[in-house]
Amino acid sequence: MSDHKIAIYPGTFDPITLGHIDIIERSSKLFDKVIVIIAINPSKKPLFNVDERMEMIFNAIKPFPNVSVEKFDGLVVDFAKRVKAKVIIRGLRAITDFEYEFQMALMNRQLADDITTVFLMPHEKFTYLNSTIIKNVANFGGNIEKFVTKFVEKKLIEKLGQEGN
Amino acid sequence: MSDHKIAIYPGTFDPITLGHIDIIERSSKLFDKVIVIIAINPSKKPLFNVDERMEMIFNAIKPFPNVSVEKFDGLVVDFAKRVKAKVIIRGLRAITDFEYEFQMALMNRQLADDITTVFLMPHEKFTYLNSTIIKNVANFGGNIEKFVTKFVEKKLIEKLGQEGN
Amino acid sequence: MSDHKIAIYPGTFDPITLGHIDIIERSSKLFDKVIVIIAINPSKKPLFNVDERMEMIFNAIKPFPNVSVEKFDGLVVDFAKRVKAKVIIRGLRAITDFEYEFQMALMNRQLADDITTVFLMPHEKFTYLNSTIIKNVANFGGNIEKFVTKFVEKKLIEKLGQEGN
Amino acid sequence: MSDHKIAIYPGTFDPITLGHIDIIERSSKLFDKVIVIIAINPSKKPLFNVDERMEMIFNAIKPFPNVSVEKFDGLVVDFAKRVKAKVIIRGLRAITDFEYEFQMALMNRQLADDITTVFLMPHEKFTYLNSTIIKNVANFGGNIEKFVTKFVEKKLIEKLGQEGN
Amino acid sequence: MSDHKIAIYPGTFDPITLGHIDIIERSSKLFDKVIVIIAINPSKKPLFNVDERMEMIFNAIKPFPNVSVEKFDGLVVDFAKRVKAKVIIRGLRAITDFEYEFQMALMNRQLADDITTVFLMPHEKFTYLNSTIIKNVANFGGNIEKFVTKFVEKKLIEKLGQEGN
Amino acid sequence: MSDHKIAIYPGTFDPITLGHIDIIERSSKLFDKVIVIIAINPSKKPLFNVDERMEMIFNAIKPFPNVSVEKFDGLVVDFAKRVKAKVIIRGLRAITDFEYEFQMALMNRQLADDITTVFLMPHEKFTYLNSTIIKNVANFGGNIEKFVTKFVEKKLIEKLGQEGN
Repeated sequence: MSDHKIAIYPGTFDPITLGHIDIIERSSKLFDKVIVIIAINPSKKPLFNVDERMEMIFNAIKPFPNVSVEKFDGLVVDFAKRVKAKVIIRGLRAITDFEYEFQMALMNRQLADDITTVFLMPHEKFTYLNSTIIKNVANFGGNIEKFVTKFVEKKLIEKLGQEGN
Repeated sequence: MSDHKIAIYPGTFDPITLGHIDIIERSSKLFDKVIVIIAINPSKKPLFNVDERMEMIFNAIKPFPNVSVEKFDGLVVDFAKRVKAKVIIRGLRAITDFEYEFQMALMNRQLADDITTVFLMPHEKFTYLNSTIIKNVANFGGNIEKFVTKFVEKKLIEKLGQEGN
Repeated sequence: MSDHKIAIYPGTFDPITLGHIDIIERSSKLFDKVIVIIAINPSKKPLFNVDERMEMIFNAIKPFPNVSVEKFDGLVVDFAKRVKAKVIIRGLRAITDFEYEFQMALMNRQLADDITTVFLMPHEKFTYLNSTIIKNVANFGGNIEKFVTKFVEKKLIEKLGQEGN
Repeated sequence: MSDHKIAIYPGTFDPITLGHIDIIERSSKLFDKVIVIIAINPSKKPLFNVDERMEMIFNAIKPFPNVSVEKFDGLVVDFAKRVKAKVIIRGLRAITDFEYEFQMALMNRQLADDITTVFLMPHEKFTYLNSTIIKNVANFGGNIEKFVTKFVEKKLIEKLGQEGN
Repeated sequence: MSDHKIAIYPGTFDPITLGHIDIIERSSKLFDKVIVIIAINPSKKPLFNVDERMEMIFNAIKPFPNVSVEKFDGLVVDFAKRVKAKVIIRGLRAITDFEYEFQMALMNRQLADDITTVFLMPHEKFTYLNSTIIKNVANFGGNIEKFVTKFVEKKLIEKLGQEGN
Repeated sequence: MSDHKIAIYPGTFDPITLGHIDIIERSSKLFDKVIVIIAINPSKKPLFNVDERMEMIFNAIKPFPNVSVEKFDGLVVDFAKRVKAKVIIRGLRAITDFEYEFQMALMNRQLADDITTVFLMPHEKFTYLNSTIIKNVANFGGNIEKFVTKFVEKKLIEKLGQEGN
């Protein structure tokens, strides 16, 4: 039965791209509440710190009243339990994605059998997008306006200028 | 916003397996109503005719009050529109699946942009299951009780006996 | 050294799609002469006969003066030798494609070491296109104007009408 | 503990290729006895009948005294049990292979847990070989001496001549 | 002919999982002697040092009298030659695995043609297991008893406690 | 129309292998001019510095009068525009390659629509080759003469000796 359905959308979002926003918009129509969660992974070195990433997501989700953003340090299933989410959303783009996502979804099912991983496919115009490629293009002065929001584009240029890259 | 969420789960189901039922059970918890639809594809030659396949699905979905079954001849997105479903559910098992599913999901998005394809991953114990392999095992007298319901097992044995295989 | 470079682009083209035309247009800029060749494969049952497929290709390649179309029954490398082409062009869309293409390219290299298979990737908006899916959509009355030329759309509707599908 | 190890190598072998022979030779060194088994699959239409395929395998395995060939109609695990084989050998070439092989190996493990599927990778020079491509090349008069034994080459030419292809 | 068959099973084993043990058990039935070898790779930073990994493997292989463990710094084929092993065992789980394994197996065949790489597929219930995911789950206090032995579970909790993670 | 066709072949080449040279030789026959470009990527730590890699490429391309080598720090499409190249050449070996290459090719098409990425497949005997595996084999004293030129072999041995590996 369907009561109040809460879904979480975990990721690194360094930074959020139009591909992510496509997934968020679709999710916001499928579920009552969507929480974007930023994984704080101390072993990775992100370009943007957690608060900067949060600000960019916050800016991007304004059009979607049932979407919020939080940061989290721990297992995704533990966060899901805490906020009573029954759904983990993942974007699915490509083969390499697929293998890793498959493993994580099965592991998460082992850890919490009542939580379901749901995969959404972004629009094909976002097939080639990922945060790493976008940072690389921005770093060399390439035009990224088709890949991120204006707000993120500005932040990326500022950040890469600061770093003297 | 989330009102009444209807999802459809299209397939051939020749016959329905425990892997399909796993997807149906999960879907029944995510959406208010789930309609299993049997694609009537005249170019394929199924082992069971549409009514037999429908009977087996009907038997399998009894535990799930918000799940029903229908047959349909046409484009999946047209069926979705007719029943006001905004979600197409697909199970996702393997690489070969993935490519085809990817193409169909993108095509369906072109045909009806407001309908979202949602992929669920069956339990890893169903990774190796598909209807073709099960029919092959049954045909040679192998034990299929771990792969289908008792009801389907009986129907398969009857059918394969009739065919003199 | 580069003198007069001739490339062939073999396929079934049942019917030609905008994805094929994207590959043809790109190829026409890379090579001096491009010959689209229709493989006559008696074991497959195409929807359109060779002459119908040829007519649709002929119509599609009008904008490209260095592109022509021919039909051929035999090994692609033998056709290549006959017309002194040193290049076989193949579109590359997806994983399943890839494996088969890999095998064919290596086999063709064994059969004729001086002929090179060149892979081009169609625009991502054609990722989901293939002739089979388009025929399926057209068959059920779906809108295919984003996938094929006006000319092919008309031919498809006529053909599927005739067949009473 | 290792007593007398028997392995079976099932397949269609229509016809046997140098890639198959590579797998057989390797297997003959790993196990005490290797039985090549030809699956009699009435739904497929092979080019060569079972006895012709058997003759070609018989000719190819002469150099390997611990290798024999049999035909079989049924589940591979049932044949394995009958001859007390604990190993099923499969060649593994490519991604598409892999998925199917993965499913069959897991299914066979379900059907007979004490039988192990063992995958061997043929030499990379056989990467592009499969019986279908070879038949296609032979059919159009291409040179297949790098792909099959002299004996099979002769049989293929005879057979394709008979068929008037 | 089959005399005394020695196989080696190389890996990082940081730490050994139930998936690895599944492969070891199967291998111990196929070959007369199986040597698990821990690759000492100075460029990787394992969680456990070589002696700790060795202790955990040693504990896990106790039930299998024909299995031993050694550490090695060098090319796997050189170790194989030294101990007169003719077989390299590898577990095969997924696509990403597959590509890398394919390259290594072909390279090893180039380096030592008389040594055969044999691939075994772990039980599907171990499909999602890898050492990295397990360490990640353990690090956040998740329950890992379905993925590793009691002994390894205890060592992992100790180690992660020491590191103050 | 085909005038003077310039192609670039970007890569890390740390060091250049016989697989790369196979691609270069084929490319030199397809286009009027081929420029091998070494990407200077400060975030990666190559074994050889840019000038050493350049020297090894320079040595390898001597037989091909229409091939040259340059280093470049920036977006590949920007280099292509500067030298008026309309073609980016990439070798395509395997699935993992494929996904990444797919993303880069689509991204580059977005950044510069008039530049075409062309994929060539190396000879199957180079399927297993990549610079990382070769460095690993050389590091442990394995024989690499089938994988690189004499010149590169000498440089690799010198370099790895210096490093005290």
